[in-house]
Amino acid sequence: MSVNEFELIARYFTGRQDTDHNVILGIGDDAAVVNVPPGQQLVVTADTLNEGIHFPAGTGAADIAHKALAVNLSDLAAMGASPAFFTLSLCMPLADEVWLAEFSRGLFALATASDIRLIGGDTTRGPLSIAITALGLVSTGTAISRGGARAGHAVYVSGSVGDGAIGLRIAQGELTMNGEDNDYFLTRLHRPSPRIRLGTMLAAHVSAMIDVSDGLLADLDKLATASGLGARVEVSAVPVSARAEAYLSHAELLHMALAGGDDYELCFTVAPDREAALLQQLQGFSVPVTRIGVMTATAGVECVHADGQVYHPARRGYDHFHH
Amino acid sequence: MSVNEFELIARYFTGRQDTDHNVILGIGDDAAVVNVPPGQQLVVTADTLNEGIHFPAGTGAADIAHKALAVNLSDLAAMGASPAFFTLSLCMPLADEVWLAEFSRGLFALATASDIRLIGGDTTRGPLSIAITALGLVSTGTAISRGGARAGHAVYVSGSVGDGAIGLRIAQGELTMNGEDNDYFLTRLHRPSPRIRLGTMLAAHVSAMIDVSDGLLADLDKLATASGLGARVEVSAVPVSARAEAYLSHAELLHMALAGGDDYELCFTVAPDREAALLQQLQGFSVPVTRIGVMTATAGVECVHADGQVYHPARRGYDHFHH
Repeated sequence: MSVNEFELIARYFTGRQDTDHNVILGIGDDAAVVNVPPGQQLVVTADTLNEGIHFPAGTGAADIAHKALAVNLSDLAAMGASPAFFTLSLCMPLADEVWLAEFSRGLFALATASDIRLIGGDTTRGPLSIAITALGLVSTGTAISRGGARAGHAVYVSGSVGDGAIGLRIAQGELTMNGEDNDYFLTRLHRPSPRIRLGTMLAAHVSAMIDVSDGLLADLDKLATASGLGARVEVSAVPVSARAEAYLSHAELLHMALAGGDDYELCFTVAPDREAALLQQLQGFSVPVTRIGVMTATAGVECVHADGQVYHPARRGYDHFHH
Repeated sequence: MSVNEFELIARYFTGRQDTDHNVILGIGDDAAVVNVPPGQQLVVTADTLNEGIHFPAGTGAADIAHKALAVNLSDLAAMGASPAFFTLSLCMPLADEVWLAEFSRGLFALATASDIRLIGGDTTRGPLSIAITALGLVSTGTAISRGGARAGHAVYVSGSVGDGAIGLRIAQGELTMNGEDNDYFLTRLHRPSPRIRLGTMLAAHVSAMIDVSDGLLADLDKLATASGLGARVEVSAVPVSARAEAYLSHAELLHMALAGGDDYELCFTVAPDREAALLQQLQGFSVPVTRIGVMTATAGVECVHADGQVYHPARRGYDHFHH
């Protein structure tokens, strides 16, 4: 881009956040310099959203920015890490000021709410794509991987699953609802709430954790595989929103909840002797957690109805809108 | 991309490097976990290369990978940092195995030679684009910014400048040479050598530093501006390669050397009482450094010939192949 375009863009990404004592040198040099406090480890994740793949063309700039950061924050949450710093590599076809102002607004609203600082990145010309690398902090040795579950550990999921996938069907014109419900599901799709505070609270109690981005069963299967195990899920226990129940048949609802993707909830496992302490600590916390099953010694994720009948999901995980 | 494509791609990016005791959890979980040793700060940079903007379509996959990592390593070098970890966000139109094998080969050859570990990232579908975030380490308080120069400090540049821009003209079909020279300049364009070891050696001696990516004068101007100063460059002192001298007129050569870009050399400033110690330490080092001018109290970069006549460059910095 031309120098003037660069200056224009810089205006939307510098001076937008309070200073942080761990950011020694921020945006504007060859690189940033940051402190990692003693006794802490760095947690690093990178996720990219491309127009037409991860969000439909025409999605609002503030929504795109929110989601691009949120999916990275969700990965930090799944490690039990606190957000600290991020870089933004923004590829865009034109330096449109209105678009940039909106993008910047959405980005820094979530960044500030999540206590994460933009410390670098670049802007290049090309089809719209947002690549973020997010850096978080954990006390040394306390990060939660996918691989720590044991057979007999309970499987939990936070919040509810399925709403994001329903939102995608609305965005694609495959479902229609009344205005308020429409907005609810589109918000769940475009503005997921990364479970940052929950993730850091869970870190002291759980044996393994993953964020649900590709669909509950697909992501639980990854956790189980990393732990050398399988899992059994009781489908009637899987939490769905009241609004989703009002619109979809039971079969459709189960499909969305188990295989839909775009949930950005946390799925985690807890040793039986830790469940009571965990639930005690979560009392009164704004995001509920629900026990949906148990880890098993047999590979694969099996789904059962309350009566013990096996449920066969149509497919597991996302094919097209994939992260 | 489909799950099978992801598995295919994962094969080319996992298990390619030795383990590192600072990488506690590498690729394959929600995020990586790394140690930052006590007494060290983290240096973070992000640079993206897009096909058709930063490299011509048809550039070899190994060259693309090398350069995408090299431009980030060059930024770390300009801070005096040692490379440590990086993430790779690769956007590609098709999961072509031959291309991926070549890309992976070019990437890990430079990564291993530079002692930097791939710890995460993602692969998405779209026009070819490579976004890397590189993390380096410095002893606390020793990172070199652009802003530390003082009036009277000498200006130096490493290696030679202009070859990358000549390589670009060859790649674009605007210059033709014999085969061996052709290869030399294309290698300088596609496979720049980030000055990592030099950068860490310089950190103890220099007052400000920047890497030369947009053209010597443009980048020196950024350093001067960050330091609240200007600079005077003696154009006859600017180091160019013998091969470049053999092909270009004096005027063309100066233009390429001063404004060409894509050099990835280090430009730095040294207090007069530190120059002798610096040159002493660099004796026998494989990359030469050359004194090309002095920092001045007047804003702007002025170029003079040996006889004191002012030289007026045609333009400063890159417009199209911009980082």
